[in-house]
Amino acid sequence: MTVTYAASSESTPQPRFRPTVIIHGGAGNIVRSRIPPELYERYRASLLKYLHSTVTLLNGEQEEGDGTKKKITPYSAIDAAVHAVSLLEDDELYNCGRGSVFTLTGTHEMEASVMVCSLLPETQGCEDVKRALIKRGAGVMMLKNVRHPVQLAREVLLRNDVEGHRGNGESMHSHLCGPYVESLAKEWGLESKPDEWFFTQKRWDEHMKGLGKGASIDHDTLPKPGEDISKYLSQGTVGCVCLDQWGNIAAATSTGGLTNKLPGRIGDTPTLGTGYWAEAWDVPSSSTRRALGLSCTGNGDSFVRVAAAHSAASLLKLGAKDSLADAITAIAGPGGELQRSAGPRWGVTGEGSGGIIGIEAEVPHDAEERQSEEPIKGKAVFDFNRGGMLRAWTEEDADGVLRERMMAFRDEYYS
Amino acid sequence: MTVTYAASSESTPQPRFRPTVIIHGGAGNIVRSRIPPELYERYRASLLKYLHSTVTLLNGEQEEGDGTKKKITPYSAIDAAVHAVSLLEDDELYNCGRGSVFTLTGTHEMEASVMVCSLLPETQGCEDVKRALIKRGAGVMMLKNVRHPVQLAREVLLRNDVEGHRGNGESMHSHLCGPYVESLAKEWGLESKPDEWFFTQKRWDEHMKGLGKGASIDHDTLPKPGEDISKYLSQGTVGCVCLDQWGNIAAATSTGGLTNKLPGRIGDTPTLGTGYWAEAWDVPSSSTRRALGLSCTGNGDSFVRVAAAHSAASLLKLGAKDSLADAITAIAGPGGELQRSAGPRWGVTGEGSGGIIGIEAEVPHDAEERQSEEPIKGKAVFDFNRGGMLRAWTEEDADGVLRERMMAFRDEYYS
Repeated sequence: MTVTYAASSESTPQPRFRPTVIIHGGAGNIVRSRIPPELYERYRASLLKYLHSTVTLLNGEQEEGDGTKKKITPYSAIDAAVHAVSLLEDDELYNCGRGSVFTLTGTHEMEASVMVCSLLPETQGCEDVKRALIKRGAGVMMLKNVRHPVQLAREVLLRNDVEGHRGNGESMHSHLCGPYVESLAKEWGLESKPDEWFFTQKRWDEHMKGLGKGASIDHDTLPKPGEDISKYLSQGTVGCVCLDQWGNIAAATSTGGLTNKLPGRIGDTPTLGTGYWAEAWDVPSSSTRRALGLSCTGNGDSFVRVAAAHSAASLLKLGAKDSLADAITAIAGPGGELQRSAGPRWGVTGEGSGGIIGIEAEVPHDAEERQSEEPIKGKAVFDFNRGGMLRAWTEEDADGVLRERMMAFRDEYYS
Repeated sequence: MTVTYAASSESTPQPRFRPTVIIHGGAGNIVRSRIPPELYERYRASLLKYLHSTVTLLNGEQEEGDGTKKKITPYSAIDAAVHAVSLLEDDELYNCGRGSVFTLTGTHEMEASVMVCSLLPETQGCEDVKRALIKRGAGVMMLKNVRHPVQLAREVLLRNDVEGHRGNGESMHSHLCGPYVESLAKEWGLESKPDEWFFTQKRWDEHMKGLGKGASIDHDTLPKPGEDISKYLSQGTVGCVCLDQWGNIAAATSTGGLTNKLPGRIGDTPTLGTGYWAEAWDVPSSSTRRALGLSCTGNGDSFVRVAAAHSAASLLKLGAKDSLADAITAIAGPGGELQRSAGPRWGVTGEGSGGIIGIEAEVPHDAEERQSEEPIKGKAVFDFNRGGMLRAWTEEDADGVLRERMMAFRDEYYS
């Protein structure tokens, strides 16, 4: 699928940044034989659809049912990332929102997060981003009945009491958990759904299967001969990272967690610095400012133990790696920190397995005076250490045309 | 107080590492006028007592009631750090365990954590540390009625299912939260206490005072003239970092959180990489291995937002700072990352305020063959960005004698 982004019309100034998007739908030991063509097509179609919809909104357009487009105020990075993840949360293919897995006791405990940074120290044109930057990031955990956990994370991020709005649930807390924040979700007008809405047969089968073999099911062990391989494809934490036209980068992530996890287990998805991160900084002895956003998926406990997202960000920020692609590979690529953290358990227990997506961009310090020039570009990158990672992203080809791509493995599915 | 550690007797080999301990009892905008001499003496006496007891156990001795000492198996870093924090949890002076603050709805939600690393890649003589290194760290959160949250964190760290011990609560989860892990605490034989045991008048007064002024009380704003200043001294997250004679470093931390926090708020204390960290690594292009352990205290939400502990560790690990002291100062010292993160809210809301303690040590790669030499030394360090930090630590003087010290401010209390 190819979409050409024309320069905006004479009435609106050229956006300073060219919107960029990357989405993931889970990583781990997924192999070709576990994704038959029909299933691959379902993943491909959904990821490309959500990617395209997100890019369109970032560009200030909205597609009607009949395919015509109308102009709207361009979405900020936060709203675009939350839009993408909300679509994934409603899609039973993924382990989040409606398609969430069950805990050991047969309940749902969903988790989500949003984090943001800005390439321009004084972000303009995005009130929500300005407000979000005060708190930087927020994670919500142990949620039942909230249709869109990622939207609750967005509210927790934006509602803060720095202006003295105490009461009404506003606070400077970044991590909120369980029944109380669920009640705030209702108070704030977010949509609630009964337990039945979150029931899917596939997740229930995984749950029962897991109970049969012990306290937890390991999605990364290979199925035995004759077993239904589709039952094993239950990775599926989702995430989206966006760069908007004002130079803000946001990362949004959502998950149902690990099948048959202990109730009360908190994974990496809602935990700042482990399953997500976004940060901008002035590069020392340079006249540039850099920024990145990251979203992780995989064996969450491993990501927690190595503070995966913050570890990758630190490699770039502290100059140990030159590019975000290299930093991500050092943590989540083959032989990287996550794999090493598993020690002799690598490949046996699923530990260490997963992937990271991200966007990085760089601006000269005088970017604010350069409005007439070409928009500044972001770069979507990713790596994973095992099998594959379901992902879709925007990428510029040799002619400067932005393409929307989707892949599951290192090579194309159809070769 | 001065204690001389004699070389061990002829029958036991010289320990490879000289035990080191540092303890904190909270940091923030505590000023001399808020700690009258009687109160200072209580803090001083308790911190020095707990420090001394911890050092004694690390050295393989136990003091009887009459002051005589008996030889015991030396404590590992984990057990020593958990011992120190357990004592602090029973002491109403500190905001943890029995002295925990109340949430907005008048309940207790305690948090704690333990993390460990080893200077020797193959740790010897400490089965608990070997087992802990598989999971590295663990945090527990939203706890009621558990007398010693830090002991529950220790159990979560040590109980893991890598050997196939599924069921019985064993898992590879590092973050466990709420009622289910409380039930595991009972199953595992940890001591439980009724709500009344955790009631203290001082914390209740703070709670009521906070309700009167809004949704949360800010411990870092200065009291108004005429107000009872002792009511404001409610910082008091506690922590301990130890280096044991086998070269293991452990960090243990415990807190009641923030007075009148929203129920379900998770702070930095139980969150890997924000309120605590421990890590060892081989220094690139060098023949040494370094290690550190960290425990934080202060405005927890700020520590979460900047992934404070992992940020400090990364500065040292990635070579941006040469010493742990410098790395801690860059994050938690005056003008550091935490202070900067508060922006214009610095000094107004309490945001960014706090401190970090830590231990670092370094060994040559051939340390295992050097048993006959002098024991390798650790160094206890700390910094804080505002007012003071209650802390006690072991430090070698010019004559090689280990001293046990306690301070609240940058200068001595009695000048």
